[in-house]
Amino acid sequence: MTEQPRPAHVLAVDVGGTGIKLAVTDRAARTVSASRLPTGREAGPEAVVRTVLDAVAGHHRDAMRTGLRIAAVGLALPGIVDEHTGTAVRSTSIGWRNVPFRDLVTERTGLPCAVAHDVRAGGLAEAELGAGRGHRRFLFVPLGTGIAAAVMTDGHAEAGAHLAAGEIGHLRVRTGGRRCGCGGRGCAETYASAAAVADRYALATGRRADAAEVARRAAAGEKAARLVWDEAVDVLADTLLCATTLLDPELLVLGGGLARSGPQLFDPLRAALRDRALLGRAPRVEPAQLGDRAGCLGAALHALRLLADDSGHHSADAGPPGSRAPRERVA
Amino acid sequence: MTEQPRPAHVLAVDVGGTGIKLAVTDRAARTVSASRLPTGREAGPEAVVRTVLDAVAGHHRDAMRTGLRIAAVGLALPGIVDEHTGTAVRSTSIGWRNVPFRDLVTERTGLPCAVAHDVRAGGLAEAELGAGRGHRRFLFVPLGTGIAAAVMTDGHAEAGAHLAAGEIGHLRVRTGGRRCGCGGRGCAETYASAAAVADRYALATGRRADAAEVARRAAAGEKAARLVWDEAVDVLADTLLCATTLLDPELLVLGGGLARSGPQLFDPLRAALRDRALLGRAPRVEPAQLGDRAGCLGAALHALRLLADDSGHHSADAGPPGSRAPRERVA
Repeated sequence: MTEQPRPAHVLAVDVGGTGIKLAVTDRAARTVSASRLPTGREAGPEAVVRTVLDAVAGHHRDAMRTGLRIAAVGLALPGIVDEHTGTAVRSTSIGWRNVPFRDLVTERTGLPCAVAHDVRAGGLAEAELGAGRGHRRFLFVPLGTGIAAAVMTDGHAEAGAHLAAGEIGHLRVRTGGRRCGCGGRGCAETYASAAAVADRYALATGRRADAAEVARRAAAGEKAARLVWDEAVDVLADTLLCATTLLDPELLVLGGGLARSGPQLFDPLRAALRDRALLGRAPRVEPAQLGDRAGCLGAALHALRLLADDSGHHSADAGPPGSRAPRERVA
Repeated sequence: MTEQPRPAHVLAVDVGGTGIKLAVTDRAARTVSASRLPTGREAGPEAVVRTVLDAVAGHHRDAMRTGLRIAAVGLALPGIVDEHTGTAVRSTSIGWRNVPFRDLVTERTGLPCAVAHDVRAGGLAEAELGAGRGHRRFLFVPLGTGIAAAVMTDGHAEAGAHLAAGEIGHLRVRTGGRRCGCGGRGCAETYASAAAVADRYALATGRRADAAEVARRAAAGEKAARLVWDEAVDVLADTLLCATTLLDPELLVLGGGLARSGPQLFDPLRAALRDRALLGRAPRVEPAQLGDRAGCLGAALHALRLLADDSGHHSADAGPPGSRAPRERVA
């Protein structure tokens, strides 16, 4: 008696500074199940690596138990990530260095694994499933604790010679401005990240409020909040203007916590870009569509690409479960 | 009696603000003959178009007379250039608008024609024949009357949504700085272009000297020249830093007149980039190798790509002269 082969699914994982998101998706990257757990980074980087691997193995087992066949794993990681060797090179938020995640996942689960940088993975997800659909070239810019960008071209983002492309939070848009942790002065992040907005508001008023709350208070007319918010938007406009002047993209897709402020961010930002762009050639500016699921969905898409690469025509669906050898390690 | 078919050559043309360069090259882009003539832009843009077309037709005839078979024409043009439609959209230095050069050349000569943007063509030439060989991703930055860049990836430079990518001369690296013709303030070009260096020196001293002479006087210890030169290098470093922070290229290839100042430009520029780049991740900085022939050689390479595209395996060499239909116009 031959069993009908079960269609393949992938397991996607997005490791952030504080939380780990997991999702099982089908071949169309539709989420079948999703969950979250804390990173637990206070226990040190080795503990986080164990937590990630345990979570992958656990979800793999759980999926099999419920009759799903996981055919590959996708991992989105923060910091400096080498997608070719599958290594987490460095993350200041977690503290790890040179963790060969691709190999570790494959050894633990027997599954092929794709490792991706979180921002570039988010960009891929927005390109294929979100605000970037139909645009062959755009910038994905998550505005969170920090500010970064993925320059998306035909569904691909270059990592750069030092795996450091897209660090637009360190564009020095205020000559001789505030000192930044990077050693520079006037970096965008020191004015316009969610963390900077909260810090500058606290400095001005002695009161704590997160960036979203500062935005609300600015909208309600509170003067100190307004000054901080307006400066953040102004700096952000100059930062995106830099990228626009260099790359002339058709579209900027803004995500992350700050983008949730909606028109209060987008209206003045669009106006400033139109006003400042060379000969008025401003790109469209649109909110990201996938929210905080972008990284996880990007990891799923990377895992699915592995299957497509391996099989040519998705033949992974045709093989019996368990028959697939781990993917060869390409250095 | 059958004649042995002659190997195909291409005719390459680089139209600048003041001069037109022409070259006949073989299939390996080796120059067989080269010449120059004035653009004559003082007679107006229509006259320049006529001059270009007459020069192309004349060189085509001359080449045939000497036994060379020209199989395609490549045209490198300044300003805003649409390579897909083969149109010179706009050039402020010449004054033309929407000149369909590809079609005009084909109508006049019967030859297929590729139209390219001069800076991007120069980048292609440096990628295949010059300082960029062996590097899949680098920036080509000609430092001349203005400052521009071509972001080269795998031998290709994106033109951008408004055909305006690479305008790094208008990166605003001095917050609230000098007014620029573009309407902005603090643009790199107002400090660091050859024109700006000459202007600022004249302003400071009442004496005229071109940028190369200012560089020499700075090296000789003249204080006013030194101030102007050092500021130009400082601004240039911040400009290239912007591009580095966003793209993390492995290499910057600097061309144009200013690059001829050699160590006086490259030494302080490399030091500043090493000092300022995020975590010391500075790209290598090298002089361009093709000098003012880069645009013309890039035009030749574009023409050669036409032949490769048309034939699959360079079968253009096999056909008798005159048998090739003009290339279909792809919009």
